[in-house]
Amino acid sequence: MEAIRWKDNALFLLDQTRLPEGEYWVRYTDAAEVAAAIRTMVVRGAPAIGIAAAFGYCLAALRGQDLTAARDILAASRPTAVNLFWALDRMERVAKACGGDPEALIREAIAIHREDVEMNHTMSRLGSAVVPAHARILTHCNAGAIATGGYGTVLGVVRTAHAQGKVEMVYCDETRPLLQGARLTAWELTQDHIPATLITDSMAAVLMAQGKIDLVILGCDRMAANGDFANKVGTYSVAVNAHYHGIPFYSALPSTTIDLSIPDGAHIPIEERSPEEVTHVAGVATAPRDVPVFNPAFDVTPHQLLTGIITEKGVIYPPFRENLAALFGG
Amino acid sequence: MEAIRWKDNALFLLDQTRLPEGEYWVRYTDAAEVAAAIRTMVVRGAPAIGIAAAFGYCLAALRGQDLTAARDILAASRPTAVNLFWALDRMERVAKACGGDPEALIREAIAIHREDVEMNHTMSRLGSAVVPAHARILTHCNAGAIATGGYGTVLGVVRTAHAQGKVEMVYCDETRPLLQGARLTAWELTQDHIPATLITDSMAAVLMAQGKIDLVILGCDRMAANGDFANKVGTYSVAVNAHYHGIPFYSALPSTTIDLSIPDGAHIPIEERSPEEVTHVAGVATAPRDVPVFNPAFDVTPHQLLTGIITEKGVIYPPFRENLAALFGG
Repeated sequence: MEAIRWKDNALFLLDQTRLPEGEYWVRYTDAAEVAAAIRTMVVRGAPAIGIAAAFGYCLAALRGQDLTAARDILAASRPTAVNLFWALDRMERVAKACGGDPEALIREAIAIHREDVEMNHTMSRLGSAVVPAHARILTHCNAGAIATGGYGTVLGVVRTAHAQGKVEMVYCDETRPLLQGARLTAWELTQDHIPATLITDSMAAVLMAQGKIDLVILGCDRMAANGDFANKVGTYSVAVNAHYHGIPFYSALPSTTIDLSIPDGAHIPIEERSPEEVTHVAGVATAPRDVPVFNPAFDVTPHQLLTGIITEKGVIYPPFRENLAALFGG
Repeated sequence: MEAIRWKDNALFLLDQTRLPEGEYWVRYTDAAEVAAAIRTMVVRGAPAIGIAAAFGYCLAALRGQDLTAARDILAASRPTAVNLFWALDRMERVAKACGGDPEALIREAIAIHREDVEMNHTMSRLGSAVVPAHARILTHCNAGAIATGGYGTVLGVVRTAHAQGKVEMVYCDETRPLLQGARLTAWELTQDHIPATLITDSMAAVLMAQGKIDLVILGCDRMAANGDFANKVGTYSVAVNAHYHGIPFYSALPSTTIDLSIPDGAHIPIEERSPEEVTHVAGVATAPRDVPVFNPAFDVTPHQLLTGIITEKGVIYPPFRENLAALFGG
């Protein structure tokens, strides 16, 4: 399962706004159009938007466009996930070294893509160790194959643990407002015949109180040096509830999502999106016209609520600042 | 603002499934149709369904139907809110006393309706004392004028506190799956020009972490003798988050919602509703076909998470079992 392909000097994205209604692939040959695809969430998920941006940068090089301008357009698409800026910085370094040679840039973007899939497989093998037998796992939003280069971070861990016979049930928070849990995670799991149950976000606490959740694993869009992390809005509420019920709470992420340049979560920029995402569902108004809306796309969970961090270099436990620096401070 | 009217021997209900799209009134002359209206949530809210059931009972009497059968049909409509059974028990006692005389029964149903509005006004006056100046209030679901005979329990308190100049903002959880917060509470508040902001359910915790919620007030569908209470699913998650953030957490309810016959929340029957409520929004599928769903309509919040209970006899504080028994133990 994958959502990003590079073929014949064009980028192909699986349109995630149309899942699970159907699998529609869109072809991109222009960096600005890739930026729009990131902004409108045709492609989403921190690792996936980094990869898509890298290929978008290649498209600008193929067209002989100004690469600094292309970088700026791509970087302006979404502010929170750090993978976007990490990938563009890496592409820019290569562009400087190779004089903007499109072939060298394409090789780099393909490497970014391939390395992401490899990190997913490695973190899934390492992370599956935290999954107990007969595990009933809660997740929020989608950190699956389609949020990454392939296989997935959270759903990579779930896939590996399921192959090991340890997954009894995956409860999917539907994840309002854009329903990535219902549309994407439930879809990935049912496609792979992994037992899944869909719930609204506020039902997670009910399952916890009933003793039906053994652990929580969810993704990350940017992690600060102390382990505070931004992830899809609703993550913080899940974290508080997991803490209250004494349930282990993990975030799974590749090292490309870690931003050691910021000391804590207060420094993570949080995107606010359109009120229509909350007031309309499937194009239908579900709220009074013009009611004010608060619609942050992400929230910040303090590291104190984290049990552990699943990465391709191992599972990290507190003290997070020291242990993140030791593994990734190089 | 009201959602229930009795006129010319017929019951008129404001169709709450179609709000805020438009205000459509439906006329009922048959008890079984009233039961269907309760089941499909044309009328909803614990006090409102009690009143509607009382009028439904009158319709059966007007038609000369078997009143025991009518009672059973109405009682089978929804299991959780105790007001339904309370109202039907009261009607049945009058039916026995008056030999099923329709006029006597209609007088009783009108009294139930009028008393509910009076209780709302009294609890709103008493409950508004817990609202501080410049209050930013969070509520969940709809415990407004249209969930009751009129004026509202939670929104009654809000209306009174707003008239006193104390309400800075009411944050409305949209309340998935049926979006009563978005469709009904935001609608009631904007109609009355009370400042309102709509959020998805999982954003409440974000606002709490930001120090933007001063207190939580929400409704109740059934309260046990110890103060444990069932309310719209999502209430429990709000309660845990309010507890974690040290925010006062109140439930507002008339005495007709208190069920002293059961010792605690474990004895409250919780209705599970159709998976389609979660997998479809406005008739559009938003999840893979046939994905399993967990869809409890209510959850139970233990009394330990409650700061106080707002009733028409005063605001009750711990120890709840003793104080509920003292006020309502007959």
